[in-house]
Amino acid sequence: MVHSEYRSNFPVGAGMSGFGEATAVRRTGEGRYSAVLDADFGFEQALNGGYLMAVLARAALDAAGRPHPISTAASFLRVAKPGPAEVLVETRKSGRTAEVARVSLVQDDTPIVDALITTGALDGDAEPLYSEDAGHLPAIEECVTFGGDGGGKDGFAAQIDMRYDPATMGWLDGRPSGRLEMRSHFRLREAYEPDGVLLALAVDALPPVVLNTGRYGWSPTVELTWHMRAVPAPGPLALYGSGRLVNDGWFDEEVEVRDTAGRLVAQSRQLARAGRRPS
Amino acid sequence: MVHSEYRSNFPVGAGMSGFGEATAVRRTGEGRYSAVLDADFGFEQALNGGYLMAVLARAALDAAGRPHPISTAASFLRVAKPGPAEVLVETRKSGRTAEVARVSLVQDDTPIVDALITTGALDGDAEPLYSEDAGHLPAIEECVTFGGDGGGKDGFAAQIDMRYDPATMGWLDGRPSGRLEMRSHFRLREAYEPDGVLLALAVDALPPVVLNTGRYGWSPTVELTWHMRAVPAPGPLALYGSGRLVNDGWFDEEVEVRDTAGRLVAQSRQLARAGRRPS
Repeated sequence: MVHSEYRSNFPVGAGMSGFGEATAVRRTGEGRYSAVLDADFGFEQALNGGYLMAVLARAALDAAGRPHPISTAASFLRVAKPGPAEVLVETRKSGRTAEVARVSLVQDDTPIVDALITTGALDGDAEPLYSEDAGHLPAIEECVTFGGDGGGKDGFAAQIDMRYDPATMGWLDGRPSGRLEMRSHFRLREAYEPDGVLLALAVDALPPVVLNTGRYGWSPTVELTWHMRAVPAPGPLALYGSGRLVNDGWFDEEVEVRDTAGRLVAQSRQLARAGRRPS
Repeated sequence: MVHSEYRSNFPVGAGMSGFGEATAVRRTGEGRYSAVLDADFGFEQALNGGYLMAVLARAALDAAGRPHPISTAASFLRVAKPGPAEVLVETRKSGRTAEVARVSLVQDDTPIVDALITTGALDGDAEPLYSEDAGHLPAIEECVTFGGDGGGKDGFAAQIDMRYDPATMGWLDGRPSGRLEMRSHFRLREAYEPDGVLLALAVDALPPVVLNTGRYGWSPTVELTWHMRAVPAPGPLALYGSGRLVNDGWFDEEVEVRDTAGRLVAQSRQLARAGRRPS
């Protein structure tokens, strides 16, 4: 393999940690991987879409022998169930800079998530030629928790430590800000420093921005595309979520992920269905 | 077909116009279409990516029998050549609100563009529940042309009438604004009112935003995802292009498309390779 030098540095979720184990894939054949989806990365309604993209990324990176998921476009077709799943990787283009594959998560022979994933290698020492400034996110100690402190609990909030900008959390007590926005610090509760696979989880970790317009209920993601833009520094990530339009039951949500150095390390947009107002 | 009521309203590029003919597809079998790619929608280096997405959209809409390309994620694998091509459409999920297909443009049995396309029906009378304001774009008469007036010429500029915001065109005479930005009015030179397929062309019609950082040369798109958000009103479209980061040879470009009523009708982000500085 041309890029085999990367392979040894990126074991396929080699049980290093909870997130590593929960996203591990095992190669079972040419472009075929098995996985066991972990209910700890889900909610009552569904497994988290970012978690599913992290599993897809593990398989795509292994198949390509490249270290970074540069670009991922995912269509969420059906609700994934905790338990066994298969990941199919079909390489469509292998070039010098990047490799592109069609990647599918399958359960019971039914496609659950279809994705196009571009893998490659970003230079961790690259200096940006141009960068827009980040938005404002208060320091961690000025931010608030939500969804339990995670101590011994199951589910998503037990895995991830999020500290929210209070200005974007008024919807919790019936005072939504009226703007499509949601901002938070993000890190796993376990010791796991940010990498390309964790960024997949980060871009879909915020509560839906549409909550701040007074819409409630489950907001299923239909499509989410995200790009890894730089190699993240160790430490917590900062998530800046926003949106532009709620129309005809659809809304968009953009998330920028910054590392502790303030660098833009990932950016996403998802198109989702807006939850209904409480009846 | 459940959605056959839409089919008759959306003939498969039925020779209504130049753009209609150039993007027409002919059904040759279950999920198989033939097309003839038109050099008039290209440049010296390549056919326009938005034009290719418009061809893919025609096939996906016909296969689904639904009127609108709600979401399109496209990976540009290889350079498309003018002439015959095949479009393969594989339906992956058909639901009440939307249908998702894997769609590929193929030439000489080689994949050129791979896409995930979600089709559905947007309500043209829907009133947005929330909408961010547009940016600023001067009136058409205060904007400037570029690339010839198109009179009798071949190529992209002969098909499309673009009127650029002068504030974003300083790169033409060596005074780039220093910001990732590009804004323009957009319409076909022929009589063809905006629809979902034309929006595919619009989201990739601007010169690369990276030109305003002093980077020149061809900037090939690697991935482009766009969403149709509302049914456009007749008349010219307004394109607002921006970007966040140029790093390690990659840059992002976001385009918002507004109709004459100021409504957000499409939004895109592409990840592309930055052209080299002149040596």
